[in-house]
Amino acid sequence: MSQVTTTDLYEVTMALSYLREDMRAPATFSLFVRDLPPGRGFLVAAGLEPALDHLSRFRVGRSDVEEFATALRRPPEDLAPLHGLSFDGEVRAVPEGRLVFAGEPLLEVTAPLPQAQLVETYLLSLVCHQTAVASKAARCVLAGAGRPLVDFSLRRTHGPEAGGQAARVCALVGFAGTSNVAAARRYGIPAAGTMAHSFVEAFDSEEQAFRAFARTHPGPVTFLVDTYDTDRGVVTAARVFTDLGLGPGCGIRLDSGDLGALAHRARAALDAAGLRDVRIIASGGLDEYGVDRLVREGAPIDAYAVGTKVGTAADAPYLDAAYKLVEYDGRPVMKLSPAKLTAPGPKQVFRGPGCRDVIGLANEERPEGADPLLRTVMRGGLRTDPPDLLSAARARFEADVAALPEGARRIEDPVPPVPVASTRLTALTTVVRHRIERRTGGGRTVPG
Amino acid sequence: MSQVTTTDLYEVTMALSYLREDMRAPATFSLFVRDLPPGRGFLVAAGLEPALDHLSRFRVGRSDVEEFATALRRPPEDLAPLHGLSFDGEVRAVPEGRLVFAGEPLLEVTAPLPQAQLVETYLLSLVCHQTAVASKAARCVLAGAGRPLVDFSLRRTHGPEAGGQAARVCALVGFAGTSNVAAARRYGIPAAGTMAHSFVEAFDSEEQAFRAFARTHPGPVTFLVDTYDTDRGVVTAARVFTDLGLGPGCGIRLDSGDLGALAHRARAALDAAGLRDVRIIASGGLDEYGVDRLVREGAPIDAYAVGTKVGTAADAPYLDAAYKLVEYDGRPVMKLSPAKLTAPGPKQVFRGPGCRDVIGLANEERPEGADPLLRTVMRGGLRTDPPDLLSAARARFEADVAALPEGARRIEDPVPPVPVASTRLTALTTVVRHRIERRTGGGRTVPG
Repeated sequence: MSQVTTTDLYEVTMALSYLREDMRAPATFSLFVRDLPPGRGFLVAAGLEPALDHLSRFRVGRSDVEEFATALRRPPEDLAPLHGLSFDGEVRAVPEGRLVFAGEPLLEVTAPLPQAQLVETYLLSLVCHQTAVASKAARCVLAGAGRPLVDFSLRRTHGPEAGGQAARVCALVGFAGTSNVAAARRYGIPAAGTMAHSFVEAFDSEEQAFRAFARTHPGPVTFLVDTYDTDRGVVTAARVFTDLGLGPGCGIRLDSGDLGALAHRARAALDAAGLRDVRIIASGGLDEYGVDRLVREGAPIDAYAVGTKVGTAADAPYLDAAYKLVEYDGRPVMKLSPAKLTAPGPKQVFRGPGCRDVIGLANEERPEGADPLLRTVMRGGLRTDPPDLLSAARARFEADVAALPEGARRIEDPVPPVPVASTRLTALTTVVRHRIERRTGGGRTVPG
Repeated sequence: MSQVTTTDLYEVTMALSYLREDMRAPATFSLFVRDLPPGRGFLVAAGLEPALDHLSRFRVGRSDVEEFATALRRPPEDLAPLHGLSFDGEVRAVPEGRLVFAGEPLLEVTAPLPQAQLVETYLLSLVCHQTAVASKAARCVLAGAGRPLVDFSLRRTHGPEAGGQAARVCALVGFAGTSNVAAARRYGIPAAGTMAHSFVEAFDSEEQAFRAFARTHPGPVTFLVDTYDTDRGVVTAARVFTDLGLGPGCGIRLDSGDLGALAHRARAALDAAGLRDVRIIASGGLDEYGVDRLVREGAPIDAYAVGTKVGTAADAPYLDAAYKLVEYDGRPVMKLSPAKLTAPGPKQVFRGPGCRDVIGLANEERPEGADPLLRTVMRGGLRTDPPDLLSAARARFEADVAALPEGARRIEDPVPPVPVASTRLTALTTVVRHRIERRTGGGRTVPG
């Protein structure tokens, strides 16, 4: 399907109105998350790279115009002004991997109004989802406290494409690998995997299954030991490792039951068999809460595989994100709907030590010592820099996490830092609100 | 990315072992949901059409083999046995749109073991997600009680591809339209949309915005009235409708605030202006709970747009689904892991009146009057029927819902029907369990 027509119909009707009314002046839209979901002390900016790819390629072709016309039940000629429209605007954005908080723009698009409007839906669909999953995955990394994590989510993500996106953002926050072969290749992530219960069941016995697997796969192997009886499975695995002279680099995987208790018994059994080098990998419905509990309990688990709950960001599967017009033709604008008040004007986020953030205007002076989060990443529709590397994003994530207050890092009941508005942004908000209230009849009290 | 390599690495390692060990006998895998999530009285089978498309096209090409080899850090020659492997097996499945319950196979694949194993991840990724979203969307349809529903989810789904899948399954359960232009075209769904707050803000006044929109879009239009002050917005919309002689087919959209109260006031204002034909459309964070409340309160809302929570199945964003080996080379198999017990053998679901379902063996005789849910949809890797129509799936959904017990249809605290196992399935489970326990050392008590 065309990326251009993968959009909400109203983007098309609005863009057409703008073109017909000759409203092509520059507009700035701000993409931000209104509030963090419960259980999140921070968000990890993600999705910018594919968003820039999309904008770079964006061009309304003839077949797109025909598709729009069909959707609107109008002749294609009516939509002729859209033909050939591409994105030649500017994007300022928070680089991937950086932490962001409520109300902080993840990106701002400045372009002729029809263009800036048309790209809304696709940008939101990329950035919201990837930021949601990256933020969940980041909490797993914190819970793991240095232990390697692997993404096993592909089978439960919202379709195979979402699985690729999940693999990428998990690597972005420091996962050691993914089970997703195509994503591993595409994003340069180590591929990882063991065996399924079906493998064990397909043989006459667990031992035969393990031996066949080792025969086929020279070098270190990992055996899944919980198909029938986990303790016996560990003993069987140990016997096969010993018989075949395997050890370093090998592992066993526990996928059900009381993982902590089973890991303790498995460790003891492996050690007793002289297999101190055989690692224990845990999986099975884990997310940051499960990993955190096992780590705190001192479970002898060497690596964690997380899947379903992380790949779907199950406890917060969407973000309350918006793409709001904040300036048109040099005029700051805002919305007054109750509970959906937006602040006017292009913005910048100034980060102080300990993630004490000030949301200010893009053109205001940087406070002493503050780190501005939004960078210009696209100008005239072209990237200003070569594509970002996952390793660079990971380094930014690690640096930001190191500066995050303890309360925001917490797994249970985290408390996110709350950014404040700069004096200039507050003043502009007041001015614009009064201007709109005068125009719309005045006298209405706006919360906040 | 290749659909073939969009898979978990372990499918590849296992398939390779099977090929090396010459284990190419027929295997049957059963894809089912172990338990329904809270808040679901039923699931709607979905994802079969794309699953069959995938299987029809499945073929391991040379570049796939290279990708697998890279992932395994082995020379491509080691993976030569996989080259050219395609899917030539049989699929029995519950047609899309039918209701299913805990433990009932959504589909069963019978094919030479390596093939049946290799397709696991992709099938799960399609079927789990689409069934989860279809089931959520179906509850919205029930809550709407005949009022049209429109899918607005694209911006918040897990990536743009998931948005297309959501649009399709929403239409499958009876949604009247989608905002997603590409999905509308691809699946033959009416496209729908209005305008955004940014549109209103881009003009000097709300009235100018409405007039410009009507100028550009001849025929019925819908105005978004809550950008500044909803009650005033309704009055402005009414004035523009009246001035331009518009009415039938037109609408206003409410997107924030107390939708029920606003709708009552808007209806009164529109009626007072002689605009009884102007419809009221509600949106803004709605799902089945919000729609149900508004409908029960008697809110004069003519159509509902639902997005975020439905497109992400927010309260149950994944299903506890499994793809389990149930028979290999004529030998029924099962897993004994605690809490993950699987029943052996290829199965059939026999539906009695009122969704009293019996899960039996595929080869057992159909009980008097029962409706077998699984049909053969693929044989020798080829579809047995032409591609299914969304309208046919919708008809199946409607028929099944009509037969669903009231408790399962309920929006609040629904109670799903619980299928029972047939005598023959129960007997086989006992036999297989004892066989495995004898082999794995016996004496262990298996729950359930």
